[in-house]
Amino acid sequence: MTKPAPRITVPEFERLCLEQTPFNELYGFVTEAIGYGSARVRMPANPKFLRPGGTISGPAQMALADFAMYAAVLGAVGNVPMAVTTNLAITFLNKPEPGDLVCDVRLLKIGKRLVMGDAIIHSVGRSEPVSHVTLTYSVPPDRPA
Amino acid sequence: MTKPAPRITVPEFERLCLEQTPFNELYGFVTEAIGYGSARVRMPANPKFLRPGGTISGPAQMALADFAMYAAVLGAVGNVPMAVTTNLAITFLNKPEPGDLVCDVRLLKIGKRLVMGDAIIHSVGRSEPVSHVTLTYSVPPDRPA
Amino acid sequence: MTKPAPRITVPEFERLCLEQTPFNELYGFVTEAIGYGSARVRMPANPKFLRPGGTISGPAQMALADFAMYAAVLGAVGNVPMAVTTNLAITFLNKPEPGDLVCDVRLLKIGKRLVMGDAIIHSVGRSEPVSHVTLTYSVPPDRPA
Amino acid sequence: MTKPAPRITVPEFERLCLEQTPFNELYGFVTEAIGYGSARVRMPANPKFLRPGGTISGPAQMALADFAMYAAVLGAVGNVPMAVTTNLAITFLNKPEPGDLVCDVRLLKIGKRLVMGDAIIHSVGRSEPVSHVTLTYSVPPDRPA
Repeated sequence: MTKPAPRITVPEFERLCLEQTPFNELYGFVTEAIGYGSARVRMPANPKFLRPGGTISGPAQMALADFAMYAAVLGAVGNVPMAVTTNLAITFLNKPEPGDLVCDVRLLKIGKRLVMGDAIIHSVGRSEPVSHVTLTYSVPPDRPA
Repeated sequence: MTKPAPRITVPEFERLCLEQTPFNELYGFVTEAIGYGSARVRMPANPKFLRPGGTISGPAQMALADFAMYAAVLGAVGNVPMAVTTNLAITFLNKPEPGDLVCDVRLLKIGKRLVMGDAIIHSVGRSEPVSHVTLTYSVPPDRPA
Repeated sequence: MTKPAPRITVPEFERLCLEQTPFNELYGFVTEAIGYGSARVRMPANPKFLRPGGTISGPAQMALADFAMYAAVLGAVGNVPMAVTTNLAITFLNKPEPGDLVCDVRLLKIGKRLVMGDAIIHSVGRSEPVSHVTLTYSVPPDRPA
Repeated sequence: MTKPAPRITVPEFERLCLEQTPFNELYGFVTEAIGYGSARVRMPANPKFLRPGGTISGPAQMALADFAMYAAVLGAVGNVPMAVTTNLAITFLNKPEPGDLVCDVRLLKIGKRLVMGDAIIHSVGRSEPVSHVTLTYSVPPDRPA
């Protein structure tokens, strides 16, 4: 079974984000890949998001996961308006190194109304995960096929 | 049964945050109250955190809940180093109004190693909740009694 | 603002459960109250659900919360077919006593498609919570008003 | 990097469960594999756990995931007393077929005090997941190395 092609490209997604999401600008997210139901986004190191001890703050990690999920959702359903997060749960596993973070999202269900996926965040060049995230998005049921 | 007095005051907490948490500066959180196992924090309206359509972004809400939880945890255990979030789960319930948000945290368990609580975020002057959050903090077991 | 009357009574709910839910029979749940958006259900002590050390098993607590949520959802939307759990998250806080457990559910959102609530389980006669649960139900959007 | 050998075998685990967990008997779980930080458990079809419409009940799925996590945890830390679930979050993705269910757990962190993993449940012979589960276990910090 071949996977469908992604329904949005990285340049299209980046253009969309410039118009829509203030967090992109705040965090400087770099969208590295979008597939049909998957995405990889990198958050460059930024002293602003460090916590005492040199680790990257939890809210910055959540913003990264939410952004990567948005990319994966649009990769699966196209540029539909009104795709919104309904639930996000994050477990912090290991302190990140003070460098770039990468987030990989895979969708587990692309439903008529709900899209659900999980994400792993890790420090570039390290194998153990920094955090695990589950995310649910609500999408409009009458979107174009 | 009377509740113990909070183990940190609002001014002490604010002083601590100035030293420690870059997110406080970013979001301008106002700590309105800290009790033994509870806290209320307000996030003033800020155009930077608006999403298209005028609603306040999810990551800003998560940062608010995490910050308010930190206040409630320190209200219960005092200023211990190494109190860190291990899990945060947020459900988005209603679009916030484009104004101030208020977050109320109550702790449900103050254990030797784990502190768990939940939070409700709402728009100032509106009764229906904007989001519901559950949070778990890991605290050092050998903290001063 | 007065709360609407519940849209299902306890006897109606119990009759429905006899037809529908095998777990009711398995656990012997007793529905003590149903309001508009709330419910209280008791799980009588049963040696079958004890774990080593005398505590009541996690899955039995989850089944109790799910059942109580179902009562609260039907109390808010009436006896609609196809109301199903989409998400359940439980945090175990304190070991239950080996006796009856009581679960209190409050709904935080009664939406067109999603109903969300949280629940506290405690041992009868004890104030500290045994567990905290958040639950989301999917309900049919075209249900009778 | 080779993975360590599992610290408990399937027959040892099954013997332990006969002594400890009433749910094993109730559900008839079959432990198919235990690795260092992973496990696969099957729940045979049982009319007792069907819901109206032929689907397998949520609490039965939760019990399956909790049991498989227990196997994976013991595969990583050995037969330590007092390994207990602290948090379980399940998202129901697709209605299961009325047949056997299989649950695959992978651990994402094997810490001194907390072990965290996620699980996918699917119907035998079907590729789309029935549910996704995240689980956290508390383990005694002073366990044998």
